[in-house]
Amino acid sequence: MATTNKMRLHWSPRSPFVRKVMIAAHELGLADQIETTRTRVATNQVHKGLLSDNPLGKIPTLILTDGTILYDSVVICEYLDSIAAKPKLFPPSGPARFKALRRHALGTGYLDMLLTWRNEASRTAPNPGMIEGSELKHAATIKALEAEALSLAQDDFGIGHIAIACALSYLDFRFDALQWRDGNPELSAWHAAAVARPSFMATTVVDD
Amino acid sequence: MATTNKMRLHWSPRSPFVRKVMIAAHELGLADQIETTRTRVATNQVHKGLLSDNPLGKIPTLILTDGTILYDSVVICEYLDSIAAKPKLFPPSGPARFKALRRHALGTGYLDMLLTWRNEASRTAPNPGMIEGSELKHAATIKALEAEALSLAQDDFGIGHIAIACALSYLDFRFDALQWRDGNPELSAWHAAAVARPSFMATTVVDD
Repeated sequence: MATTNKMRLHWSPRSPFVRKVMIAAHELGLADQIETTRTRVATNQVHKGLLSDNPLGKIPTLILTDGTILYDSVVICEYLDSIAAKPKLFPPSGPARFKALRRHALGTGYLDMLLTWRNEASRTAPNPGMIEGSELKHAATIKALEAEALSLAQDDFGIGHIAIACALSYLDFRFDALQWRDGNPELSAWHAAAVARPSFMATTVVDD
Repeated sequence: MATTNKMRLHWSPRSPFVRKVMIAAHELGLADQIETTRTRVATNQVHKGLLSDNPLGKIPTLILTDGTILYDSVVICEYLDSIAAKPKLFPPSGPARFKALRRHALGTGYLDMLLTWRNEASRTAPNPGMIEGSELKHAATIKALEAEALSLAQDDFGIGHIAIACALSYLDFRFDALQWRDGNPELSAWHAAAVARPSFMATTVVDD
């Protein structure tokens, strides 16, 4: 395996999972150590060159300078935290750690659900049960996040915050009609503060 | 929130993600501290009672004795490891940790892909691109796992091993026709040894 000076990331400007990694890199001061490679993947289109690095064909996938390969997004984020001069995104142990990991699972699971919902809604014959279930999960998740917004604002910014803010920004990107801010003032205020961070400003998700 | 003597797990005998948690509990000697509650979820059917514990409506979801709620499966597994008398499933740091986490992501991502594939194949009009992509990812994953099988056998049994063995057992459960053992002798031998462990014997996945 070739040795290079920079880590190499299979990347796309449209993937909210890639965005989590790039936000983490910016938060940790590591963005300039990552070289991004545009890798196009879609639900219906496997990127065959990616399969040798990640047989599941998913991005983000990170290749370290010694050739070691890491995925998925949360594993890459924890790795970056572990090599940073000042790790800060993953509390090392105890209740703070599991709160952060549970929040990360909520934000990332919400993203997974939203992508599945969008894919389902775009089909010729969407499954009504899946559409209705997605609406229920969306409503329950936003309600839970509004209830947790003050606590999010008080805790140190970490991997849970990144995942949840990325999911809410993805709502703005793909589900504008849901108007998620209506009736959720604390979550709206927390999200506005999160996306004003330089790490979020540097990593907006766009169609290209 | 009520205090009880046992942790409570939203559980199903059919979920390979629940199984990962139960295998971890058995490996760590914690199975008798978990009370399981049968919670029925399906792609097309939200369990509304579950949404108050986990707004994404997914199992496994664990409720600690103090009322703290944890999800998803890997977060629960790491929590159980952290409270065990002898933590052993998650290496604490360094290359061993990230190898284990990458393997876990491979096994769990493979499970996700297989469930999506099975769901797609069961539709009236499956998307040909998704079916073909699933076949390619399956082939690439089995090839990668066969190449890694000797290393899996040599390393301490941990969270990566659990996830990969659960995925292969799910192939046996739902994708018998793929005959994944053909041409993969080292992976087959490793899997046979894994599923002979008491933790696997105690947690077989079944239709009910």
